[in-house]
Amino acid sequence: MTAPLHGLVPPLTTPLTPAGDVDADSLERLCGFLITAGVDGLFVGGSSGEAALLSDDQRYRAVEVAVAAAAGQVPVLAGALDTGTARVIDHAREAAKRGASAVVSTGPFYVAPHPDEVVRHFELVAAAVDVPVVAYDIPSATHTHLPVDAVARLASAGTIAGLKDSSGDLTSFRRILAATGGTGFRVFTGSETVTDLALRLGADGQVPGLGNVDPDGYVRLGRAAAEGDWAAAATEQERLLRVFAIVDVADRTRIGFTAGALGAFKAAQYLRGVITTPRCADPLLPLVDAEIDAIRTILVDEGVDVRR
Amino acid sequence: MTAPLHGLVPPLTTPLTPAGDVDADSLERLCGFLITAGVDGLFVGGSSGEAALLSDDQRYRAVEVAVAAAAGQVPVLAGALDTGTARVIDHAREAAKRGASAVVSTGPFYVAPHPDEVVRHFELVAAAVDVPVVAYDIPSATHTHLPVDAVARLASAGTIAGLKDSSGDLTSFRRILAATGGTGFRVFTGSETVTDLALRLGADGQVPGLGNVDPDGYVRLGRAAAEGDWAAAATEQERLLRVFAIVDVADRTRIGFTAGALGAFKAAQYLRGVITTPRCADPLLPLVDAEIDAIRTILVDEGVDVRR
Amino acid sequence: MTAPLHGLVPPLTTPLTPAGDVDADSLERLCGFLITAGVDGLFVGGSSGEAALLSDDQRYRAVEVAVAAAAGQVPVLAGALDTGTARVIDHAREAAKRGASAVVSTGPFYVAPHPDEVVRHFELVAAAVDVPVVAYDIPSATHTHLPVDAVARLASAGTIAGLKDSSGDLTSFRRILAATGGTGFRVFTGSETVTDLALRLGADGQVPGLGNVDPDGYVRLGRAAAEGDWAAAATEQERLLRVFAIVDVADRTRIGFTAGALGAFKAAQYLRGVITTPRCADPLLPLVDAEIDAIRTILVDEGVDVRR
Amino acid sequence: MTAPLHGLVPPLTTPLTPAGDVDADSLERLCGFLITAGVDGLFVGGSSGEAALLSDDQRYRAVEVAVAAAAGQVPVLAGALDTGTARVIDHAREAAKRGASAVVSTGPFYVAPHPDEVVRHFELVAAAVDVPVVAYDIPSATHTHLPVDAVARLASAGTIAGLKDSSGDLTSFRRILAATGGTGFRVFTGSETVTDLALRLGADGQVPGLGNVDPDGYVRLGRAAAEGDWAAAATEQERLLRVFAIVDVADRTRIGFTAGALGAFKAAQYLRGVITTPRCADPLLPLVDAEIDAIRTILVDEGVDVRR
Repeated sequence: MTAPLHGLVPPLTTPLTPAGDVDADSLERLCGFLITAGVDGLFVGGSSGEAALLSDDQRYRAVEVAVAAAAGQVPVLAGALDTGTARVIDHAREAAKRGASAVVSTGPFYVAPHPDEVVRHFELVAAAVDVPVVAYDIPSATHTHLPVDAVARLASAGTIAGLKDSSGDLTSFRRILAATGGTGFRVFTGSETVTDLALRLGADGQVPGLGNVDPDGYVRLGRAAAEGDWAAAATEQERLLRVFAIVDVADRTRIGFTAGALGAFKAAQYLRGVITTPRCADPLLPLVDAEIDAIRTILVDEGVDVRR
Repeated sequence: MTAPLHGLVPPLTTPLTPAGDVDADSLERLCGFLITAGVDGLFVGGSSGEAALLSDDQRYRAVEVAVAAAAGQVPVLAGALDTGTARVIDHAREAAKRGASAVVSTGPFYVAPHPDEVVRHFELVAAAVDVPVVAYDIPSATHTHLPVDAVARLASAGTIAGLKDSSGDLTSFRRILAATGGTGFRVFTGSETVTDLALRLGADGQVPGLGNVDPDGYVRLGRAAAEGDWAAAATEQERLLRVFAIVDVADRTRIGFTAGALGAFKAAQYLRGVITTPRCADPLLPLVDAEIDAIRTILVDEGVDVRR
Repeated sequence: MTAPLHGLVPPLTTPLTPAGDVDADSLERLCGFLITAGVDGLFVGGSSGEAALLSDDQRYRAVEVAVAAAAGQVPVLAGALDTGTARVIDHAREAAKRGASAVVSTGPFYVAPHPDEVVRHFELVAAAVDVPVVAYDIPSATHTHLPVDAVARLASAGTIAGLKDSSGDLTSFRRILAATGGTGFRVFTGSETVTDLALRLGADGQVPGLGNVDPDGYVRLGRAAAEGDWAAAATEQERLLRVFAIVDVADRTRIGFTAGALGAFKAAQYLRGVITTPRCADPLLPLVDAEIDAIRTILVDEGVDVRR
Repeated sequence: MTAPLHGLVPPLTTPLTPAGDVDADSLERLCGFLITAGVDGLFVGGSSGEAALLSDDQRYRAVEVAVAAAAGQVPVLAGALDTGTARVIDHAREAAKRGASAVVSTGPFYVAPHPDEVVRHFELVAAAVDVPVVAYDIPSATHTHLPVDAVARLASAGTIAGLKDSSGDLTSFRRILAATGGTGFRVFTGSETVTDLALRLGADGQVPGLGNVDPDGYVRLGRAAAEGDWAAAATEQERLLRVFAIVDVADRTRIGFTAGALGAFKAAQYLRGVITTPRCADPLLPLVDAEIDAIRTILVDEGVDVRR
């Protein structure tokens, strides 16, 4: 399992039909689009996949489609994120059953856990499934930052195989790398905007939501980093930072932050001809046409190929 | 359905066996204990019920047991709280199928919704089930305060039948009462500690977690309020405030806030002979014996009958 | 000094000239307006007085003007709020020198203090001045809620003479009243909107910012409470809650929360003919005419006499 | 003024006597210690200087001592941080009068400003003094993150000369660099732990609190960066990250976060023989001997020379 956990693993959106069902054709196209671009894995059912807004059936369907589309070319990681241990275990088992190579879990949320309870959560999840478990730190969603010590303990015990760090905190990222270096533990950044810095610090890979939209950019960034050409990596990163402005296009007095960001990813995938419908899951509200036009302009300005 | 939504409706803990399964016997005893004390309804699968930490099967089992135990004597409200609309609808349907009289849903969390997206969430949930939907405002868990305007719009449209307000914010509570007065919309306080004030403001009922532990106290408080004897209500409330000190007994450098609070409720129910095992759901850590002893002391000091 | 600390003590705005200096004439008129309405004290240099935005000279000038205007008819409390102990002591001494009857201090902010450091802060402040010290809990500004235990310790040691609680948390308010009852410690609510409830709980007085605008309303509320006519108190409070809507009139995409709220108080005082200029201290931006018109409409609708 | 604003500018602690006065001898030694180590400037009266806890006289005394000690060898920047514009202007003028080369101001705090009010604040401060104004972004203290757009507007208008960014957010840091590059605007990182990354992104300099304790380390880091030897910079940074563990030594159930961090800096300076007394300003509580011993151990382990 060491092999899968490295490199560029975009967290896929979950394309939906106008009626709100999983759009298997679009998801399949998205998988192909990403694999063709050269990604090293697919992560379905994460925050970018709107996992929190999908039914269990929709989540599992997305795993099935991605596993089939990947067809063994790259590993498929499946989000098992949920409020508590029991539910995470249920998701993890269902994902493993459908062929996921690894599962990705946040710590508990809604409740306010102690670090030792977070550790226990991952111990129980890891004991319940045969696939590797990757911890997911996303305090903007869970409102709890996974403590460095807890991650280090879980890593050194071999309980978790890796971490996706979407905290934006490169100090704790650095501490985790220092605490786990040389153990085979895989540390991924979830950042879109300081990915090059995370790779420079020694990250094993990147899981940028914007990788859904511009995988070529992140492939180039990753290759430059692998070659130690940090100037090229930075130049690419700066271009991607400008592309990332699409998440701020939506009028936040009208729709929420999540709708604005994930709606922008889907709008861009739609404009690029990858998915058929840019809608997000209920109850998120849609972007308006002027916002989608503004996204098109950003993409075009930054050299991202659009079809619509 | 107007009838059920009034008075004292404690949010039940979900008693578990030592192995972590729903302890149906204990839950049945708890229902009986509460009904005998004179409550007006039972709310299963809320925050106090550790819904966020239970599997779907455990949640639904709790509804079944409570509906059977209530046997029509009082209505059973079921928590359908979850991160997104699709999942809330699934829970709501399963609960309704099992005989719940109403379902209780938070707004979306994990995601960051706009007020209009919160409104849309409740519209979709309400349209999907035949039972009344009660909105649940608990920003300490969801990290979003339901906006007064959104609640007022949903109330005036008849989309939601009521609100459980656990925000601790009596100003917004007052505004909601002012905005919905005379419409049949039912406003409940989720407070343990300013329940008398909420009733004085015109609340239709109370949903205090501590009602699990000392239902007699809240019954007395509610009766005093109904008779307009606010001095007696305040005296009872002040006693209950002292009982509520049990949630602060646990050492928070060792276990989390939720474990400390819900563990205290369960420890008290155990000490009172109502449930068999005081354990919480994974991954919450247990209270230690000295903490349980301290809880016993508080209960005894405040005249709460204990058996163990 | 027991006498001063009771009843209605509005936290005065600090009227400014168009050039931004303290407008002594307007402040004098404001003092007279409030005393005529029947207030029991004046609190200058608090949050409503924009103390955080005034120079030291402006602060002290406001104290001088208020002390002169009060002319012994009612006590004048002076805000000594600042980031740290040394500066609070400096403010407190200057205020006492100018005739303030008591000084009001937050705990330290900008820094992140431990409760024991908060206690030490008040001990040092109290030891440094001869006038009584009132603690001020306003977590929306200081980002630290004064712990109940710390307040209780300070009260029982006689270090502080009272508390102004602007936390909006009636549970901690109740706990403080329970912990300090019968000791002569004076507990004030800083709420505009649940003042009646705080009085019902046993508060010694009220310090509502809106008391600047509609002192008659709060005088009536206080009298009704003193007579035990809680229905009348609630009716008045509900009217004042509608008046308080003036703080939400400003467009928050254009100016900040503080500018919107304090600007509304000053606009209302201007419309009532009490102060000459509605401007706030730098760098707060002004309300626009349409917003001031909307405030006038609210005032008129709620029976508040306007002159402009 | 371009000259001063570059390179390593440690934010000095303010050494105090046992009685709590500014310890001019220790501060003078500290200035000498830092200049000898090769720093490019001194920043007095910042957060590390406990400015929020000092009296005005203490603040200004610290500026005087530092200006005298620097004796023109390096520029002295002076903190003018305070809650509002008027007070910041007063501090800025006093500092300029005493020879400060530039002044450093946060945006307003205690109040909740709109970005346009933040802009106006800096415009007014800059107009009031003849020395350059550096903006200071420290949301952990002020609870408001300076918006990128506001900084960019102020930079492009030439209102502010630079930024000290202690937000820990390298994405906004990158955006600010992108928005201001080539204009002469100086961007400093306030980080202790990702300083190398900030320099790699193009920062003009570093203002690390830990630079008080181990200036040699940050000098080496800065030189390695200037030579483009990023591996050496990272190695030094990783060592400094281990030294930075001193701020986590204190028991946070006993003293506050600020006391633990600044107390550790002062304890280390004391152990190194630079300052005479490790006490912090009131009301911060002191470290205990065992904590100071633990700090000594960390320093020794990481090759930092100690004398006591």
